Amino acid sequence: MAEVVVRPMNGGNGHYSYSKNSAFQRNAIEAAKELINKGIAEELDISTFTSSKTFKIADLGCSVGPNTLLAVQNIIDAVEHKFHSQKESNNIACDVPEFQVFFNDQASNDFNQLFTSLPPQTQYFAAGVPGSFHGRLFPNASLHFVHTSCAAQWLSRVPPEVLDKRSPAWNKGRVHYSNSSSEVIKAFEAQYAKDLDNFLKLRAQEIVHGGLMALILPGRPNGTPHSEAYINKAFELVESSLIDMAKKGRISYEKLDSFNIPIYYASLQEVESVVKRNGSFSLEIMENLPHEKPQPKVMSVTLRAGLEGTIKEHFGDEILDELFDLLLYKKLEEASSVIESCDSVCLFVLLKLIPNEQKRVYAACTG
Amino acid sequence: MAEVVVRPMNGGNGHYSYSKNSAFQRNAIEAAKELINKGIAEELDISTFTSSKTFKIADLGCSVGPNTLLAVQNIIDAVEHKFHSQKESNNIACDVPEFQVFFNDQASNDFNQLFTSLPPQTQYFAAGVPGSFHGRLFPNASLHFVHTSCAAQWLSRVPPEVLDKRSPAWNKGRVHYSNSSSEVIKAFEAQYAKDLDNFLKLRAQEIVHGGLMALILPGRPNGTPHSEAYINKAFELVESSLIDMAKKGRISYEKLDSFNIPIYYASLQEVESVVKRNGSFSLEIMENLPHEKPQPKVMSVTLRAGLEGTIKEHFGDEILDELFDLLLYKKLEEASSVIESCDSVCLFVLLKLIPNEQKRVYAACTG
Repeated sequence: MAEVVVRPMNGGNGHYSYSKNSAFQRNAIEAAKELINKGIAEELDISTFTSSKTFKIADLGCSVGPNTLLAVQNIIDAVEHKFHSQKESNNIACDVPEFQVFFNDQASNDFNQLFTSLPPQTQYFAAGVPGSFHGRLFPNASLHFVHTSCAAQWLSRVPPEVLDKRSPAWNKGRVHYSNSSSEVIKAFEAQYAKDLDNFLKLRAQEIVHGGLMALILPGRPNGTPHSEAYINKAFELVESSLIDMAKKGRISYEKLDSFNIPIYYASLQEVESVVKRNGSFSLEIMENLPHEKPQPKVMSVTLRAGLEGTIKEHFGDEILDELFDLLLYKKLEEASSVIESCDSVCLFVLLKLIPNEQKRVYAACTG
Repeated sequence: MAEVVVRPMNGGNGHYSYSKNSAFQRNAIEAAKELINKGIAEELDISTFTSSKTFKIADLGCSVGPNTLLAVQNIIDAVEHKFHSQKESNNIACDVPEFQVFFNDQASNDFNQLFTSLPPQTQYFAAGVPGSFHGRLFPNASLHFVHTSCAAQWLSRVPPEVLDKRSPAWNKGRVHYSNSSSEVIKAFEAQYAKDLDNFLKLRAQEIVHGGLMALILPGRPNGTPHSEAYINKAFELVESSLIDMAKKGRISYEKLDSFNIPIYYASLQEVESVVKRNGSFSLEIMENLPHEKPQPKVMSVTLRAGLEGTIKEHFGDEILDELFDLLLYKKLEEASSVIESCDSVCLFVLLKLIPNEQKRVYAACTG
């Protein structure tokens, strides 16, 4: 069976571009700003960075548009502030370092758009790094701060069993897990735990000891069932729109059954449990941030900017207008009162890489 | 007066793309391969790199297409070979490092094409760096090997005096310097010397002590007048094609007079003199390599792939087919016997960054 191919956010600058339809994701970055400042102020030990004169930041799954630049600027401002205040309080020579920023996304991301949208005078050296964050992207111990926002909910693949007719976890007639059988949900949970663990292992190789990583993820509150989280409700409407199209004969049931959206929305508890089992990072900050629920029109275009590439790859591009602009938009409007009652949260986790010699001690403490 | 805007090589994969029309430049890279191997074998002191575990390579003005990947692969192979042979001969622990490769070109280069053309499994971590090499691109002391091929002949700007009606160096009715007055030639020589000196200063900041830089440039043999070098003959035919179009009223004389191609073809003597005056690098290898003279059809498309963007920016795109495919091609055919008699050479220079403390000694030795 053909794999579902994940495509990046919509490129360019047009009506359905991610660049113009990412207020939802921007909101997450802005909500996280204060916590990133706090994390850098309290957790960044700048004495470990003064030997290497360049402070290196990576934004994983950066996509294109204003969000990308905003997130990086927040981090640089906070690091500069830390250096300045350290200098004043200790009266020691710790000059603000040079910054190098690596913007990462899949090779098919619109890097041309990203590069031409960089301000002519940045206070950092910019680079683009093509490739999936489910694989290695950077040399050993070469990054000081990794940031990833609204990206690590994308799985490395659709769990194979949900596309397997012989499996009890077969997600027949559906493309999302939140309203499916417990077998389907377990398959997605397990894939997510595996992918996040692998993600942490990879980043543990790439980040310097004492380096920080901020994970920002749309998610669900601890204890809230999958089907009652706002973001899953929205995805169920994408699913229901696709089912309508199959009923109308616009897409075949075979196509529908061979597709699932490779995305999973975790709770803080789940992230915490993977991080602790993984053992490479200490959890410094962990919070649910409130997250906006956009108007139906905005949400339908936001979902289109993010999912269009992946859906087009599987179903072809002739269904996109009907799917998103007609069906999904209508369903989002109809469901607005249900949606209003759901919690929309954004998970914020700040991690710090534990030096190898401390790992065993930490593991003993956190069980 | 509006600046002449330099645009990168043609992107994409089409008929006039650089990717498909760069055999001329590939030839230069292949001609330089042996000398790069020699330079790395003899001049690279790997003991200075073993502390940083990543060997960092930058290709400046990389454009897109197979040449880009070829050049980098040559360097990696040579460095790996050096590490392996050092290990065998000295029986010391110097493991082959990880490689990180920075592909640099202007922000408007087709990085999308470059990134999607990277092999799925490379033995290096790839990054794209947008920006002009006439400015800073990388943090201090962050590169071990800089490679630039068929790129540093592009000037940072057209020397302003050649576009100035009141200047004795006004290059009226022309767009290239090689057949112009000595004032015009001097203006281009001076701009090149200034740009190359600045280029060396910038790279001296970015390269680690002991790091290497290979400069590969189409040029002219020492002592050959500008107008007798093959590459200048080809550019004079571009010029003469534009003059024909002005005569026919296809472009205005005003447009013609406000344009010059910001390119200069140096001799080894000139490069040597700038490098010595600059004082940051020692000259390790310096050679003229033979360089192919392509057939007229190939040369007209090669020139189009390289110049189209810059010419389009100034004259508009409606003249391109007539200029390159009709006029220039015809002129290249007519001039083929003259062209055959000209020397086409490729300059190869391998430079090594001198540690600061050694600079004064070196300056005293080289005068």
